Amino acid sequence: MPSKIRLHVEHALGAGQTLPLDASQAHYLFGVMRKGAGDVIEVFDGRSGGWDAEVVEAGKKRGVLRVLEQVRPQQDPPDLWLLFAPIKRARTDFIVEKAAEMGAARICPVLTDFTNSERVRRDRLQAHAVEAAEQCGGTFVPPVAEVAKLGAVLDAWPPERRVMFCDEALAGRGTVLSRGPGPVAPWAVLIGPEGGFSDAERQRLANLPQAHPVSLGPRILRADTAAVAALTLWQTTLGDWA
Amino acid sequence: MPSKIRLHVEHALGAGQTLPLDASQAHYLFGVMRKGAGDVIEVFDGRSGGWDAEVVEAGKKRGVLRVLEQVRPQQDPPDLWLLFAPIKRARTDFIVEKAAEMGAARICPVLTDFTNSERVRRDRLQAHAVEAAEQCGGTFVPPVAEVAKLGAVLDAWPPERRVMFCDEALAGRGTVLSRGPGPVAPWAVLIGPEGGFSDAERQRLANLPQAHPVSLGPRILRADTAAVAALTLWQTTLGDWA
Repeated sequence: MPSKIRLHVEHALGAGQTLPLDASQAHYLFGVMRKGAGDVIEVFDGRSGGWDAEVVEAGKKRGVLRVLEQVRPQQDPPDLWLLFAPIKRARTDFIVEKAAEMGAARICPVLTDFTNSERVRRDRLQAHAVEAAEQCGGTFVPPVAEVAKLGAVLDAWPPERRVMFCDEALAGRGTVLSRGPGPVAPWAVLIGPEGGFSDAERQRLANLPQAHPVSLGPRILRADTAAVAALTLWQTTLGDWA
Repeated sequence: MPSKIRLHVEHALGAGQTLPLDASQAHYLFGVMRKGAGDVIEVFDGRSGGWDAEVVEAGKKRGVLRVLEQVRPQQDPPDLWLLFAPIKRARTDFIVEKAAEMGAARICPVLTDFTNSERVRRDRLQAHAVEAAEQCGGTFVPPVAEVAKLGAVLDAWPPERRVMFCDEALAGRGTVLSRGPGPVAPWAVLIGPEGGFSDAERQRLANLPQAHPVSLGPRILRADTAAVAALTLWQTTLGDWA
């Protein structure tokens, strides 16, 4: 874990730039973390790497930072989306946190035929992705898409984006991913809900030319475990862990 | 997720066997899950696969099941230990749950130089491992060892057991695991604490002939994420996902 406090900001960054803080940022930095004028933290805007910034004004509900110098290069993840069916709140939060840590470029909650939970607050999940990047030294924050029905998502599926489709019904079978010559095309990882996919969904995915069914071993995994395992498999085979 | 209720029992299993339930099992089955005489659940003892069992007596604080027939073969994990440094309670619970799901054969909490949390209740962690097996259709429950200092564990390290040692300081370097000819020797996966290993620990591990340093990609991962990612890497390369 990075020892310096890290804060994601919307404001574009550059040396000498002045950064106004909003009330919640000021509360966090000065109230919770006890920082004050002269202290240095790291800020990142999701596009320009990490920058040291000095506190020049510390108020109860506002504050100002001055950007010093870049201390960390921008590191974007590969072009990998994570599609998952929301589950119980704590485990959904967990999936979003893990997707941000593991280097997903976009997080897409999808409603499947057997999805139990339909209440998904996009802003809450986005805040979890921001926090994961702050805590883990990330410079990129994956956007969280609005929740959508899996059928509608597949109707509009981009022809060039392949899908690693993880289905517990495959236990022990499925294709093996391997890196071919040439660039890795855009990909997505799709994790099913805890009840599995419906027969209609399985049929639909089987007919999708971009779909690659992949097994996550002989045991049944919870959806949150499956998300981390699937992202690991993809990153080590096709992504930036290779 | 299996649709039938699954219960881990200490009692050895066999067709026709009578199974007495303790108060907490009776409360769970009859109070919480509303089961009654004649209902069928699945039981497993960690050694004999999964068995259907019928409720023959349902009381408030006690009950009796009768074992019917085996419905699931015993599935033991490979001989893989997970060693990890305990962190905050919820994330420690999570690591134990995930280790049970991912097929670790033994779970060993170890105290490292930079471990923050020292209060580890073995019985609580063991209950999490049992619950994970119950929920995920497992027939094996990994034992949770008593917490021990990493140095003492390494002093008594079995010569034939290799260690996949995941260190965030390796980011992007480390050896690549590959399956050689012959049987896979006993292994362990070792996950460091959130503050990383100390220099003395790194030195010690570097000098351990059984240690294989492995990188978990270019991003810093939380310890719970690292545990799932490392178990995935091991299982897909050397374990029973291959």
